[in-house]
Amino acid sequence: MLVVSLMRLGDEENRLKETFPEVDFEFYKHPSELPKTTQEKMDVLITYHAEVDEAFIEAASNLKWIAWYATGVNALPLQKIKEAGISLTNAKGVHAQQLTEFLYAFILDDYKELKEVYNEQKEKVYNSKRTTQSIEDQVIMFLGTGVIPQRAAEIAKAFNMKTIGLNTTGHKVENFDRTYSLDERQSVYKEADIVVNILPETKDTHYLLTKTDFEHMNDHTLFVNIGRGTIVEEAILVEVLKNKLIRKAYLDVFEQEPLDSDSKLYQLDNVYLTSHIAGNGETNKKKSTDIFINNFKNFLNKNELIENVVDLDKGY
Amino acid sequence: MLVVSLMRLGDEENRLKETFPEVDFEFYKHPSELPKTTQEKMDVLITYHAEVDEAFIEAASNLKWIAWYATGVNALPLQKIKEAGISLTNAKGVHAQQLTEFLYAFILDDYKELKEVYNEQKEKVYNSKRTTQSIEDQVIMFLGTGVIPQRAAEIAKAFNMKTIGLNTTGHKVENFDRTYSLDERQSVYKEADIVVNILPETKDTHYLLTKTDFEHMNDHTLFVNIGRGTIVEEAILVEVLKNKLIRKAYLDVFEQEPLDSDSKLYQLDNVYLTSHIAGNGETNKKKSTDIFINNFKNFLNKNELIENVVDLDKGY
Repeated sequence: MLVVSLMRLGDEENRLKETFPEVDFEFYKHPSELPKTTQEKMDVLITYHAEVDEAFIEAASNLKWIAWYATGVNALPLQKIKEAGISLTNAKGVHAQQLTEFLYAFILDDYKELKEVYNEQKEKVYNSKRTTQSIEDQVIMFLGTGVIPQRAAEIAKAFNMKTIGLNTTGHKVENFDRTYSLDERQSVYKEADIVVNILPETKDTHYLLTKTDFEHMNDHTLFVNIGRGTIVEEAILVEVLKNKLIRKAYLDVFEQEPLDSDSKLYQLDNVYLTSHIAGNGETNKKKSTDIFINNFKNFLNKNELIENVVDLDKGY
Repeated sequence: MLVVSLMRLGDEENRLKETFPEVDFEFYKHPSELPKTTQEKMDVLITYHAEVDEAFIEAASNLKWIAWYATGVNALPLQKIKEAGISLTNAKGVHAQQLTEFLYAFILDDYKELKEVYNEQKEKVYNSKRTTQSIEDQVIMFLGTGVIPQRAAEIAKAFNMKTIGLNTTGHKVENFDRTYSLDERQSVYKEADIVVNILPETKDTHYLLTKTDFEHMNDHTLFVNIGRGTIVEEAILVEVLKNKLIRKAYLDVFEQEPLDSDSKLYQLDNVYLTSHIAGNGETNKKKSTDIFINNFKNFLNKNELIENVVDLDKGY
């Protein structure tokens, strides 16, 4: 049994070796260092690299399971993986806490006007009249009701906000006051003060949001994207923000990443940008390895994976 | 029965008149507009103005109750009010939500490095390697365990933080994992990553924090003051931050307010300042009037106040 990791895992490497002393583990710094012979023999692959493309899968003729150490699997050749009979798990949930923290960092930065206050500090202005809006009773609407939006909605409820969740069927999910199907979204936008995209990238969510979507939102709406940038064309988003169809946006993900320094997003005054860092966390490798170990014990015993198994047709 | 308000209360004025049709209400824009004769006759006073000093109380010979529409009562002549047999209630709890929102705005601004990221945006830098620290499992220590710290600790628990509360006796309070007496604080600081002051200003809390307090804190400690600025001399705080005895501070309150533009705090690079705005909220007047109405019904029936009665000896 050979397990290959395409990145170094620090302290987790010893934990894996000690937990599974009979298994061979090989750790590489980067996919480019993987010897061809190893690629052909490996049973299990730990990775989050775009190098795992169709040709890579083709050459990995003994591969049975890819443990993807990220959440979004859109970069992987899912159809090819399915045809090859390879299982796929992801790190869903590992990033929920960090993404939730960034979401409220963004929302509170906006509602508490911290950028404006910071500019006053730089000018040595003491303005005790500033009265900021509370997030209490504000309606936050999530595109997606998976593990991350659920965690984010839990915090929203702690802050006494009202929560709406959109998912494929409109089924009820804990911590959402109301749920609707994604198809109904344009008739629901008017109820929301904040719209948050945390959907994965799939064929159904690619360019899901059109200009019409934003036209249906309130002009005071705050839009936050911590899901995938391909939910909307950048050109549409720029137009929407420039024409103030909505009030402001905080974006961590982009249609094209890395974001080009020529992007028109940089020229807007009502958008704040982070560089796909909202999921980054120091404990991600540890948490992803927790999931891997749980799965690997079952894999060795019964050839079955039990946690975070990706549906290769749905893409999440 | 004459009730005087030293500020206009907007929609709340009609609510008061409609709720108590037999009572005379007079609303002034500012204490300076109050006629001497009215001051002498009024039974109840709604105010949050520093103009209510010893001489003012002396002249208000028929006054029985001051409904203070703020939380901290340190600006009032408490001894004089006690001698005159006047009751005092405050707006404790009204600001808990806003103050809690500011607290987490500050903490997340720091932990998610939003200022640093914003500077990258201005330089059109896309740095996807930035990995920010999670607040999960961070230890947040509150000086004070009253209504506001309780609300803030509730949110801390929702974010999976660990909470320590300090109060006069060390008695247990909900949402605090551990509580200690304020006297024990110097032996507890080392356990905390974040230290938050939300104590009221009283003779016991005035200059409570000395340089020794900060010397006992971790050098990575984040200090947040949303209580009262007189908890520590500004000169000590400047020295502590300049010498990096602690990592950073977010301050909404100051020893002298308004903060002078010559203050050395403005020259530090590890302090963020807001201008005593963290309690400001659009619904404060409404919430304070809710408390007033509840009290006034009892006051009219039985001459008794039941909510937010201030202990004039303790000063909160």
